[in-house]
Amino acid sequence: MVKLNALETPCLVLDWKRLTRNIAALHKRMQRLGVNLRPHGKTAKNIEVVNLAIAGQDGGITVSTLKEAEYYFANGIEDLTYAVGAAPVKLNRIAALIKKGARLKVILDSMDQARILAERAQMNDIVIPALIEIDSDGHRSGVRPDEPRLLEIGRFLHASPHTELQGVLTHAGASYDCRSVKSIRVMADKERDAAVRCADRLRRRDLPCPTVSVGSTPTANLARSLDGVTEVRAGVFMFYDLVMAGLGVCTVEDIALSVLASVIGHQKDKGWIITDAGWMALSRDRGTASQAIDQGYGLVCDINGCPLGNLVVSGANQEHGILADRSGTPDHGQHLRVGDMVRILPNHACATGAMHDRYHVVEGGIEVVAVLNRVSGW
Amino acid sequence: MVKLNALETPCLVLDWKRLTRNIAALHKRMQRLGVNLRPHGKTAKNIEVVNLAIAGQDGGITVSTLKEAEYYFANGIEDLTYAVGAAPVKLNRIAALIKKGARLKVILDSMDQARILAERAQMNDIVIPALIEIDSDGHRSGVRPDEPRLLEIGRFLHASPHTELQGVLTHAGASYDCRSVKSIRVMADKERDAAVRCADRLRRRDLPCPTVSVGSTPTANLARSLDGVTEVRAGVFMFYDLVMAGLGVCTVEDIALSVLASVIGHQKDKGWIITDAGWMALSRDRGTASQAIDQGYGLVCDINGCPLGNLVVSGANQEHGILADRSGTPDHGQHLRVGDMVRILPNHACATGAMHDRYHVVEGGIEVVAVLNRVSGW
Repeated sequence: MVKLNALETPCLVLDWKRLTRNIAALHKRMQRLGVNLRPHGKTAKNIEVVNLAIAGQDGGITVSTLKEAEYYFANGIEDLTYAVGAAPVKLNRIAALIKKGARLKVILDSMDQARILAERAQMNDIVIPALIEIDSDGHRSGVRPDEPRLLEIGRFLHASPHTELQGVLTHAGASYDCRSVKSIRVMADKERDAAVRCADRLRRRDLPCPTVSVGSTPTANLARSLDGVTEVRAGVFMFYDLVMAGLGVCTVEDIALSVLASVIGHQKDKGWIITDAGWMALSRDRGTASQAIDQGYGLVCDINGCPLGNLVVSGANQEHGILADRSGTPDHGQHLRVGDMVRILPNHACATGAMHDRYHVVEGGIEVVAVLNRVSGW
Repeated sequence: MVKLNALETPCLVLDWKRLTRNIAALHKRMQRLGVNLRPHGKTAKNIEVVNLAIAGQDGGITVSTLKEAEYYFANGIEDLTYAVGAAPVKLNRIAALIKKGARLKVILDSMDQARILAERAQMNDIVIPALIEIDSDGHRSGVRPDEPRLLEIGRFLHASPHTELQGVLTHAGASYDCRSVKSIRVMADKERDAAVRCADRLRRRDLPCPTVSVGSTPTANLARSLDGVTEVRAGVFMFYDLVMAGLGVCTVEDIALSVLASVIGHQKDKGWIITDAGWMALSRDRGTASQAIDQGYGLVCDINGCPLGNLVVSGANQEHGILADRSGTPDHGQHLRVGDMVRILPNHACATGAMHDRYHVVEGGIEVVAVLNRVSGW
């Protein structure tokens, strides 16, 4: 069996033990709250991981690209919610997937999109199910819960013979910028309230709303009630990351993803250790920069995954990482020699994962028990 | 012929006219300064582009990964400088390339690396040429010009039967953080002085130093003299980007790379336009954040590549970009409708390019004249 220290660096390591523990914990939480989990496939971009995340759930997933949709569908998942407003240029590809048997749902928040959707669905002679996107936190897209256009879009989707009003969907992405567990709980209430309120508005006008979909990893973890909600979407929770740890949503010990790197040099007068994992391996994500603890480009662990004190990736060039002690006292990591390997926990699992084409799977130790591919692109 | 508006978004667009103009301009500059250009293959990661960049030069290139080295070698380029200190775990792969006929040079800045290199070269029964990396600006790796270890490493590489002392190499990466053309010129002088001084130190001890290699796109563009230097390395200059424009190294009209995106929605009360190009398509790079003009995640142009006033990507999620006017007055881009396409100029060409697997080549217009692949990974 190959061990991590025989791998070429940089590469992505996935701790299957932590992954299964993280998934089991959210499954349990969803069960307690009486809600189905529709895992988001955009973080893992891998069927084995997503199969684990749908076990015991209704079987549907969320995707962020049509490439993911096609990949997961080819691997047996038929119920897919494409949770990014579909660009018109993508609608024929969406139609092709539906014709093959995918139960693919799109989202939209304007009459322009609804009309284009109905037109293209008619041209392709199919029915495309759609959810109305709700803006629960002002961070991005969506109809505000009080806007008249909610009903206008709902009526149009319901009346058009080639579209099917599937319900409402919202994502409280602003929860990533919260500063406390308390504020995430407030955000979770807002997210649920917005979705449930919109569902009520539609139903009061005799419009169908079978799906009331909410979700983000922080709100999924901290919501106290999901009454009225039918499904929760989350993706990062499978791996977690330093941003989530900084939010109090997980601990550093829950983080299942890391980047294996080799030490290639030192600048001893500065206490710097240089590795071969730069931003090409870690991503440019600096999500912890605005948190209480700035983890640089990642927190440094030994090859077994144990943090080396306050050692972080303080700087990153394309193929170089600079390790330095966050507290400024270069105590930790000074034993590291050229050729030694470290594992770097990422700020943002989605962004770091995206820089790689495969996972090297371990189960707590350093033996590589499997290599799993990731899908990428659009 | 396919036009840009028929492509699925997001995708990468390369303007071949701007590319050839940028390359010709630096070739002319290098000729005037009497120095060979060793283009860096890490930005383009594509043989057609790099072949254009070596035309009329000595034919060697720089690479940042062994994947690039193998790719360019398979495509006919034999003279390769791998400008990242080689992790020991990569040395057998380096040896394999050399055995196949690649004139691959490595860089190092410590006796530890030199000893490991000599040992592995001996095990593989080959000679590996190496350059000593010099720290000319304190930004990363390298031996400081005055350090005794320069001579220690030089003597070792020269004496060992399995290593060959090839010379010195430095990269003034701190030039990216300069605030004026004047300070880049100072940096270019420092970069050259450090390399030439180290070459002199080696030669005075009768150690060979055929190569004196310097380079970064800013210093290559603004150096007033390169006396004593034998080659310049640069990569970004082929495409340029907003960081380079912010430094005064190029203009916005020189930028050859852009990301094609579709409008998928609006938040009209905020003046926001939502597109399908988020950080997955643009990268998380925020290199202009610390410059005089913060371009967000990129400057927005129409489909022909003309900037839409001060419209920038003010926010980016994984697959969503938020366009807003940099000046706060939402005048520009308000004509954009769902399905319209825009082109986004990147902060950092290397980082944005890395998110894609191919280029859609145009020649000033919107006709796609070629599709060229990019290599990725390690």
